[in-house]
Amino acid sequence: MRSRLIKFSTSICNQPSLPRIIIHMNCTKCKIKAVIKLPRHNAAFCKDCFNGFVMDQVLKAIRSQDMFTKEDRLLVAVSGGKDSLALWDILLKLGYRTDALYVNLGIENYSESSHKKVSHFAETVATAYGSVVHVHTVEREEGAGIRELAMIVHRPTCSICGTIKRYQFNRAAIQQGYDVMATGHNLDDEAARLLGNVLHWQDEYLEKQGPSLPASLDGFAKKVKPLYRLTERELAAYCVLNRIEYVVEECPMAQGARTLLYKEVLNKLETESPGTKHMFYWGFLEKQRKTETSVSMMDKDRSTLHPCSLCGQPTTAETCSYCKLMARAKVSTSL
Amino acid sequence: MRSRLIKFSTSICNQPSLPRIIIHMNCTKCKIKAVIKLPRHNAAFCKDCFNGFVMDQVLKAIRSQDMFTKEDRLLVAVSGGKDSLALWDILLKLGYRTDALYVNLGIENYSESSHKKVSHFAETVATAYGSVVHVHTVEREEGAGIRELAMIVHRPTCSICGTIKRYQFNRAAIQQGYDVMATGHNLDDEAARLLGNVLHWQDEYLEKQGPSLPASLDGFAKKVKPLYRLTERELAAYCVLNRIEYVVEECPMAQGARTLLYKEVLNKLETESPGTKHMFYWGFLEKQRKTETSVSMMDKDRSTLHPCSLCGQPTTAETCSYCKLMARAKVSTSL
Repeated sequence: MRSRLIKFSTSICNQPSLPRIIIHMNCTKCKIKAVIKLPRHNAAFCKDCFNGFVMDQVLKAIRSQDMFTKEDRLLVAVSGGKDSLALWDILLKLGYRTDALYVNLGIENYSESSHKKVSHFAETVATAYGSVVHVHTVEREEGAGIRELAMIVHRPTCSICGTIKRYQFNRAAIQQGYDVMATGHNLDDEAARLLGNVLHWQDEYLEKQGPSLPASLDGFAKKVKPLYRLTERELAAYCVLNRIEYVVEECPMAQGARTLLYKEVLNKLETESPGTKHMFYWGFLEKQRKTETSVSMMDKDRSTLHPCSLCGQPTTAETCSYCKLMARAKVSTSL
Repeated sequence: MRSRLIKFSTSICNQPSLPRIIIHMNCTKCKIKAVIKLPRHNAAFCKDCFNGFVMDQVLKAIRSQDMFTKEDRLLVAVSGGKDSLALWDILLKLGYRTDALYVNLGIENYSESSHKKVSHFAETVATAYGSVVHVHTVEREEGAGIRELAMIVHRPTCSICGTIKRYQFNRAAIQQGYDVMATGHNLDDEAARLLGNVLHWQDEYLEKQGPSLPASLDGFAKKVKPLYRLTERELAAYCVLNRIEYVVEECPMAQGARTLLYKEVLNKLETESPGTKHMFYWGFLEKQRKTETSVSMMDKDRSTLHPCSLCGQPTTAETCSYCKLMARAKVSTSL
């Protein structure tokens, strides 16, 4: 166990507060030797109790935010990274009817190795639960990889990636009759996004940020983030301890992204004062709950969204951003 | 000039974004050789144009926040540090009727050297304007230095310091008929305080945070922060360029204070993305202005504050926190 955690702490995620190798601590719950320390919970756990803690956090998220029930059909967006594969694994183990969607972005080595991790998980774990993975290949469906599309339309790659993923994920959920779409966003992702929105006082984004966004109208699937109570570090530990193989590298396109900077400063604050991230994000959710923003957001969505003139998916403009993107790409090339 | 700025950049303030020695840049305004670069304004200035920029920022702060007029009598709280001495200097040069209050906290070497800097400035600069400095010595008036008082009542030193300074500053202003109290809080101070309040979603503190707090009722002087548009780095540069001698060390009691951590992470964000601090703080002020919080805060103050039963200063309790502190100290000792 020690050697695995040493490898883990030096290679898997580049946070300052890496999982610590516990030699002299016992599990807070069952008192056997602990394998991970969680400063923000003032606790340490052995493997089994840590898995129990993770399941418990996900169940609390699902129930407290009315995300879904055992009757719902779920579609998880998987990238091959630790968060989305952990989410798929956890939902299956908890007995939820879960399939997955993988979007192959066509980024050479990165897409190839992430696709392999997804296929490996599907074959070795998911199949036994009767769970399947749908694959959307950008190069085949959109005519070029996202790097090429970004160059063609002169927009940042991450922006193109977001447009395509959101569109295809929603389309797959609606067309194939899934009740809820789930993503692997964790506490670090949500706190970093919140910090960015607060630093720029982005009221509209602040209103829309939450772990459970209702299906505000036909054509928009409900979106949930069942991992919002768990950190990157905890999810990396979950994968390592449960032998889930995942792509360790960040997407090469995300280098230098603002989110990574926000995560870095939040990690600095967390190290000095454990619990900062969850107080920050949960305090925000509590504040949001008091002002009942989700209701007004749903009303706002209903009044501003209507079907795209080309594809029929909901949009605030006449043509949705995906159709605009594809139209621009077609004009510029012979796609 | 070069050697002075080299000394400045290595010793005066420990921010990552220190004033840079400009060798190849010219002043954005008058085109002679620049001495300081201001990335957040995408500008570089010579000494005279930099002084003009500083005065301009302070005037904008005074006017946009209706802080005071040339008829008002101002009392500046001076600590011997760069911000408060720069503020005293700037207000005198701008022609405002300004005196100062120095609170000697009784922290051995630190208080001694800061007192010296204040006296030196008073003699060499302020006297020529007819400006005086009032001195409040904690050891003489409260019977012990703040470090001892903190030990006697088992409270953090910074908390005792805050209680005494706020109380004595307000008392001096009211008793001696000053219209407005001014403090040297700069953009870094305000952004760090805002970050702390936002991370913990401290609604009450968020409501009360602003560069101009009105005299909500009798016994409470108006409080303003005319330096909120200038950074620590800019104020350190102002002092160096204008030969204002100030205490370089942080107060030894403030080591490890949470505010320093918030400043550190904001500096990290500012280095990567110049302008982050002012967008964050000014965006907050704009949001606050739209919701007209200052009015509701004034109403709230009026409904909750009344005179302290012992000293008559405004308080929300029967006895104000200063009188409570002194009563506890007297019980514990023979002060």
